[in-house]
Amino acid sequence: MTSFHLPATTPAAEALPAVAPVAPGIVLPGKRLDFPAREPLPLDCGVSLAPFTVAYQTYGTLNAAKSNAILVCHALTGDQFVAETHPITGKPGWWETMVGPGLTFDTDRYFVICTNVLGGCMGSTGPATINPATGQPWGLSFPVITIRDMVRAQLRLVDYFGIDSLFCVAGGSMGGMQVLEWAATYPERCFSALPIATAARHSAQNIAFHEVGRQAIMADPEWCNGEYQRQGKRPERGLAVARMAAHITYLSEAALHRKFGRSLQDRERVSFGFDADFQVESYLRHQGSTFVDRFDANAYLYITRACDYFDLAAEHGDALVNAFRGTRTRFCLVSFTSDWLYPTSENRAVVHALNAAAANVSFVEIATDKGHDAFLLEEPEFFATVEGFLNGCAEHRGLSKP
Amino acid sequence: MTSFHLPATTPAAEALPAVAPVAPGIVLPGKRLDFPAREPLPLDCGVSLAPFTVAYQTYGTLNAAKSNAILVCHALTGDQFVAETHPITGKPGWWETMVGPGLTFDTDRYFVICTNVLGGCMGSTGPATINPATGQPWGLSFPVITIRDMVRAQLRLVDYFGIDSLFCVAGGSMGGMQVLEWAATYPERCFSALPIATAARHSAQNIAFHEVGRQAIMADPEWCNGEYQRQGKRPERGLAVARMAAHITYLSEAALHRKFGRSLQDRERVSFGFDADFQVESYLRHQGSTFVDRFDANAYLYITRACDYFDLAAEHGDALVNAFRGTRTRFCLVSFTSDWLYPTSENRAVVHALNAAAANVSFVEIATDKGHDAFLLEEPEFFATVEGFLNGCAEHRGLSKP
Repeated sequence: MTSFHLPATTPAAEALPAVAPVAPGIVLPGKRLDFPAREPLPLDCGVSLAPFTVAYQTYGTLNAAKSNAILVCHALTGDQFVAETHPITGKPGWWETMVGPGLTFDTDRYFVICTNVLGGCMGSTGPATINPATGQPWGLSFPVITIRDMVRAQLRLVDYFGIDSLFCVAGGSMGGMQVLEWAATYPERCFSALPIATAARHSAQNIAFHEVGRQAIMADPEWCNGEYQRQGKRPERGLAVARMAAHITYLSEAALHRKFGRSLQDRERVSFGFDADFQVESYLRHQGSTFVDRFDANAYLYITRACDYFDLAAEHGDALVNAFRGTRTRFCLVSFTSDWLYPTSENRAVVHALNAAAANVSFVEIATDKGHDAFLLEEPEFFATVEGFLNGCAEHRGLSKP
Repeated sequence: MTSFHLPATTPAAEALPAVAPVAPGIVLPGKRLDFPAREPLPLDCGVSLAPFTVAYQTYGTLNAAKSNAILVCHALTGDQFVAETHPITGKPGWWETMVGPGLTFDTDRYFVICTNVLGGCMGSTGPATINPATGQPWGLSFPVITIRDMVRAQLRLVDYFGIDSLFCVAGGSMGGMQVLEWAATYPERCFSALPIATAARHSAQNIAFHEVGRQAIMADPEWCNGEYQRQGKRPERGLAVARMAAHITYLSEAALHRKFGRSLQDRERVSFGFDADFQVESYLRHQGSTFVDRFDANAYLYITRACDYFDLAAEHGDALVNAFRGTRTRFCLVSFTSDWLYPTSENRAVVHALNAAAANVSFVEIATDKGHDAFLLEEPEFFATVEGFLNGCAEHRGLSKP
């Protein structure tokens, strides 16, 4: 396993030149916007970040009224390469089935924006980027950020585009947390909101799984107390274990059974050893070993921490309804029956709060055995739900059909 | 964290002197039986183990007819210290609430035996014990064992006691797998069987979680390819991560929420750092760090592997009913509603097979939010179920009341 594999040529940055490579000497492809030191980003932890960079991609065209923009928020290990070949892995974008011409998020009709979250490792400022004050990677000196901080950074980009009101803010998992935070913090900026397979707070079990991942990373001597970049090391084994543990939570027991069961990997019988005898072992090891090629260990620590800290009710006097009082945003929530990471009950709690705030809200639970990952997979009923919601909102917004 | 903390004085061994210390120079307390080289133990992997040691404890008195013996089988990280202070941790035995005078497994009435499983690290032969052929710890040269191998070793001890028919074989989780294996392989030796919170095969999800634990151990450089004992090292950080990941699976989401929720650990607000801000993090870290004082990393690899390999139907022509055809053993199966590691559906699959074999079987699903660990906790309905089953079997067996 090596460090980031970059294509020989990278698309030109649209905004300012990159100041925040993920590693010294490496400039990631894609668009980015640099905010200078005079425009600091105040963070929940009490410090301000300046300068900082928001890396992003866009799809489709912003209309003259700037009324057709959809902000898509990515999940924990996602990034801004929503609907195009990933520059590191060479794989399709993570929502290429959803975002594109004629698709659910129809880029012939809508202007889709996705930012790499603050704290991430695909170009936005995070622990792997250079602290301009020291010329060294931030590492653990990077401030601990929150979901709200991620949203604040996104707002700056939305302002840059001159968009007063996003047509929709949409995302699954941690992306859904950002959607809820947008709707609660900047309700006048969200015409509609689409939180998918998410929760208004991280549960004890959610925190527990994240803590296992963090401990796996920190247990790796190559982590070097977070200073691995300076020391020319990479905590790949710890990060791979973290990914493996997390990956199990993205799938349902039924999906694992259907996909792998107890099938053996390229052998007739068990080896009576510790090789990957079972397909599910081989699959998990692959998930771990490929993940480390595209993700930074400290970014994993920071982003999981942001999720753990997320508790929207706590930000609003411990009553979730307060987060949404007086909102005019139109909501559609989607959950999946076999999602045990962010189960329907957590999504329903948000619906109850929205109902208590007399909000415009619909809620659909999709029957599937695919677990949490269902929001990334081919689920026709899910696609139809989202498309229907967007069509309805577009009609209210007066957006013409393509 | 240090190596095994042993009390200054240890109980005298009842059988032969110990030949299988967990680490050179350390002799664990308790009873053990050494089988000499002329009495090898044939293993499923095709090799034979000789000599070998079975460490065990007993409670109560074997009656003259040798008809009142209950073999209790321990779970993955359990051991033979069922109902007495643990010699390393100083904590109560893991089933002290169940086993004792006047308790569910009434030692005024029954003779309770528990062996440390083959492959374990509390005195029975396993990877941490000395290979007499080399004078060095077995490490990864120890043969990979199965649940059936564990049962074969237990049978030797039962033979040593001259017990033709165990009154009952009982155990939860991996202990329940041993119970099923006993009933399938030595039906004439089991008057009754009590498999609790278990399964007749390890599911893909079960294997996946075990593989994460093994990879966490193997990722620790102190593991030294399994040779850490020779090199005077201990892969404590990897083993702790393995324990943390596994521990989450022992608890239900509801139990974690009830016990910890999002409560903070000794602080008013989050630290914006990577300390254990949340109680659940502190709890998990404690589970990890205390585990390494009492468990051996290679034993963890071997025992998890034995569970993964367990597939009772596969041992019987891929039809579970074949495992039980003609059985006269009386069965009682118990599952717990919130157990997602070995859910009711897996236990029910065993009941269906037993019914198809026209076996004498009862099945109780206990309503609890405590998850898989419920079989180790105070659950009055569970205790009553077991006691009722044992009383009924005792009547059929002609065992007098105490």
